[in-house]
Amino acid sequence: MAKSTVRRFAIGVDYGTNSVRALIVDVADGTEVATDVYDYPSGKDGILLDPKDPNLARQNPADYIEGFYRSVRAAVAAAKRKPGFRPENVIGIGIDTTGSTPIPVDREGTPLAMKPAFEKNLAAHAWLWKDHTGHAEAAEITAKAAGSRENYLSKCGGTYSSEWYWSKILHCKRTAPKVFDAAYAWVELADFIPAFLTGNLDPDTLPRGICAAGHKAMYHEQWGGLPSKGFLAKLGSGLGRVRDHYSAGAVPADQKAGELTAEVAKKVGLPPGLPVAVGAFDAHTGAVGAGIKPGTLVKIIGTSTCDMMVAPMETELPDIPGLCGIVPGSIIPGMYGLEAGQSAVGDIFNWFVSHLAPAKYTAKGDPHVNLTKEADKLKPGESGLLALDWNNGNRTILVDPLLSGMLVGQTLHTTAPEVYRALVEATAFGALTIIKRFEEYGVGVREVVNCGGIAEKNAFVMQIYADVCDRPMKVSRSAQTCALGSAIFGAVVGGAYKKTEQAQKKMTGVKPTVYRPRKAAAKVYAELYGLYRTLHDAFGTAGFSGRLDRVMKDLIAMRDRVRKGLRKK
Amino acid sequence: MAKSTVRRFAIGVDYGTNSVRALIVDVADGTEVATDVYDYPSGKDGILLDPKDPNLARQNPADYIEGFYRSVRAAVAAAKRKPGFRPENVIGIGIDTTGSTPIPVDREGTPLAMKPAFEKNLAAHAWLWKDHTGHAEAAEITAKAAGSRENYLSKCGGTYSSEWYWSKILHCKRTAPKVFDAAYAWVELADFIPAFLTGNLDPDTLPRGICAAGHKAMYHEQWGGLPSKGFLAKLGSGLGRVRDHYSAGAVPADQKAGELTAEVAKKVGLPPGLPVAVGAFDAHTGAVGAGIKPGTLVKIIGTSTCDMMVAPMETELPDIPGLCGIVPGSIIPGMYGLEAGQSAVGDIFNWFVSHLAPAKYTAKGDPHVNLTKEADKLKPGESGLLALDWNNGNRTILVDPLLSGMLVGQTLHTTAPEVYRALVEATAFGALTIIKRFEEYGVGVREVVNCGGIAEKNAFVMQIYADVCDRPMKVSRSAQTCALGSAIFGAVVGGAYKKTEQAQKKMTGVKPTVYRPRKAAAKVYAELYGLYRTLHDAFGTAGFSGRLDRVMKDLIAMRDRVRKGLRKK
Repeated sequence: MAKSTVRRFAIGVDYGTNSVRALIVDVADGTEVATDVYDYPSGKDGILLDPKDPNLARQNPADYIEGFYRSVRAAVAAAKRKPGFRPENVIGIGIDTTGSTPIPVDREGTPLAMKPAFEKNLAAHAWLWKDHTGHAEAAEITAKAAGSRENYLSKCGGTYSSEWYWSKILHCKRTAPKVFDAAYAWVELADFIPAFLTGNLDPDTLPRGICAAGHKAMYHEQWGGLPSKGFLAKLGSGLGRVRDHYSAGAVPADQKAGELTAEVAKKVGLPPGLPVAVGAFDAHTGAVGAGIKPGTLVKIIGTSTCDMMVAPMETELPDIPGLCGIVPGSIIPGMYGLEAGQSAVGDIFNWFVSHLAPAKYTAKGDPHVNLTKEADKLKPGESGLLALDWNNGNRTILVDPLLSGMLVGQTLHTTAPEVYRALVEATAFGALTIIKRFEEYGVGVREVVNCGGIAEKNAFVMQIYADVCDRPMKVSRSAQTCALGSAIFGAVVGGAYKKTEQAQKKMTGVKPTVYRPRKAAAKVYAELYGLYRTLHDAFGTAGFSGRLDRVMKDLIAMRDRVRKGLRKK
Repeated sequence: MAKSTVRRFAIGVDYGTNSVRALIVDVADGTEVATDVYDYPSGKDGILLDPKDPNLARQNPADYIEGFYRSVRAAVAAAKRKPGFRPENVIGIGIDTTGSTPIPVDREGTPLAMKPAFEKNLAAHAWLWKDHTGHAEAAEITAKAAGSRENYLSKCGGTYSSEWYWSKILHCKRTAPKVFDAAYAWVELADFIPAFLTGNLDPDTLPRGICAAGHKAMYHEQWGGLPSKGFLAKLGSGLGRVRDHYSAGAVPADQKAGELTAEVAKKVGLPPGLPVAVGAFDAHTGAVGAGIKPGTLVKIIGTSTCDMMVAPMETELPDIPGLCGIVPGSIIPGMYGLEAGQSAVGDIFNWFVSHLAPAKYTAKGDPHVNLTKEADKLKPGESGLLALDWNNGNRTILVDPLLSGMLVGQTLHTTAPEVYRALVEATAFGALTIIKRFEEYGVGVREVVNCGGIAEKNAFVMQIYADVCDRPMKVSRSAQTCALGSAIFGAVVGGAYKKTEQAQKKMTGVKPTVYRPRKAAAKVYAELYGLYRTLHDAFGTAGFSGRLDRVMKDLIAMRDRVRKGLRKK
């Protein structure tokens, strides 16, 4: 018998690092109806690079627009082939993106890169989250903010990152002043997409999401929004102007940014006037899509991780050093959103496979599977190896991009699977360090839900995480938690639910398989973690004798000096 | 025109880890006339192993005897095909071996392993230098000797090694008491070969070389030879007996051990009655063959290194901590012989190639050559990497087998050639640390002469050594310095020269190619060495906060515990 109730749908559009995904779900239970992915066509895997500067990573804003059209149109077309779907029954759209990915725009909100005068200028494009060109500026902002009366860094872990909004803008001012002068304002990608879709591109008024503002731009109600013009002037003249054209009052993602314009709607085969939610970052909607709630840590594990928690507003929450941010409403509206993370996880495993795995493991089949098969036979502690998971710096808890990887304990018999396992264990120790930091500051972790490619596919890694953290590891039911989280906000702005939590209850869940800690392994790992912390503290924090905390930094400084000298030749 | 003078020849026989080499040279100028190598047939590459214990390494004494026959007979046969050689014109034979490689023997001096009752018993075989089963006993001897009145370790760097004579004998007593009880005495391989060749195998009287006695058995005239029976009794009952059957008065290698027996002479095609020199260790005769003299450091670079110096007896030589030994007459008779070394050099490069080099470098050609080609393009400091060269522990200056390798500075872009170069640099930093230790204690290094396979063939490694040490690196003219050094002692006992130095002047030399330090590279390496020393001191010595010096040891202890647990299953 046919169901009599009409099914309703929401669309989540998830802008990742290399591609954009559109996901159409049933708002009743989160069932995935159709999905489509579009790879950004520009640069290498969608990223514009500079062979002379490994820190540079930009994107072409035109790819984002084309990506919306292509992915949503294809997903709608695919959904139409399923029973029960009709475009008229789509009730809302939510958007998430990478970040901080600010875009310099003109008075009309048009990205400078889309104007002929700037289309070849890398500085005029979107400054992708993983662009680290502003690391000197980040250090300067940290130093100046630390001395500020308002304590601007108190809500973002005490250290300003080279990945974030003001570091990038300040670096642009110093290295590409023509672009800086031509930019009327800087708009985060997460805000740009809803603005474009709803036809309100005016930088002075387009809705700015609290997620990007609070986590990356030092926005907080405590000091009246963005940092003061006086403080920004201390960083560089002209930065006050960026503040002037930053719309007042950043809002959470359960708010409507506007309605889908007729032009866009037509292009993708949806009705015009559809509510579009305020944008948020992928990790934040991913946490929503994984069912985050107070006491639940959501780990989004991919090339890097984001470790997300929420806490009720009535909690007396201290400033937690090393977190990327504590922002009211950034994940679930009405709760504190807490973000932590590891700078590299899957990226470290991929690095090892690409650069140090012998033919035995790479000649045939998936090298990760081949290495895992052997690594899985080892017992904790058996290799005598210990690694630090800092090949891409350390995000939480040290907030220091100038840290690097380390491996200790190798003998003349150390094998590739032993090193591979040590690297997996190192990322697990990094994960545990984050859990401990949350709990040290009163944010209890009662449940861990993992999502992302590694959580989905890699039982070996998940079991080590369970053993190292001595806690069960659950895995999110959806494989597309970021897009699902965005769809949840689409469902809320579309009126299917009043509150985000209600939508989550219906639309999210975990898989039946739970990785449970094994007692013997957990015991050995507890001991190994003690040694990990010894290395962590010696190389990552000041206060050890012999200036060990300088070793990694001196090596990087020397490397940069030598490379600069080589470039000059 | 034919020369009117009759050419005279000496034979050097060099017992290495996997094979024995016989070399016939012209005593006038060291010209190599013929050579032959015999691979030991027993075990894996001549070594008897125990799959359950990676520390165990034994050899079959029968291989040594067969090896003398085969290699010398073949070399003599080859020499006979050359103009001017006649067996009657051979004037003497010198012997060098690995060490400490003690052999348990019966009352007649027959190795127990050659008797039916013990031929399957690994403990009854020769305990190869690289057997580390006695590491606990070594630590115990160090502790007890440190508290002894005579300061028995003052001449061997302050730490007794698991590679040495008494560690091995004590370990045998504790783990194979039947062998220990059956052994009338323990004879070093370097003493056993001359004893066998000259027919004087009686343990109570066969000549014992000062080289083995002084460097490995705590023999010193200052305390009347071997350590006292009282001290040995403190280590274990029965060790006094080993002392009782250790012939009095250890002698240098320019002394005659005896004359070649008719039986052996006949087997190899030489005249009976030929003088045979007292045996010494390969590194020591290698130093002689490379032309060692006061102020000249001879580095014998292979899988590990030996770093040898001599100092005139009139020098006021302090005890130098971390050296393997300071023994009068152990290299050149009448001078102090000083021995230092690195536990692994070529072994580390081989380990990397075997276990961590990707197919790109191993698929075709020599992986070392392929990696070197890329590594050679890098500038010092360019990779941002730094390694410790401790994959096999640290011999000089830390004398600690329970240290391990370390690599720091890796990013997500670190390549295999970068790691390979960092490992080469690490061994160079280790080499510099030894030079500095000599000089800190007043033994000036005015010249460095390198020999061994790596010095012969690897310009890349030699250039890095020159840059890191900021000194010219010379290479010995002979590629067989150990055998040449033995032949030099053969020439001396044969009467061609009165003193070893005179023979050296005529029979040794360096190659015309000298690796000279490059100023810019030396400057960067001076800075990198500072960081190396920071890591070296933090992980290798006590006194840092946070007990960093325990990290490697705790990892090894954990590994051993886990592996032991696995074996029990």
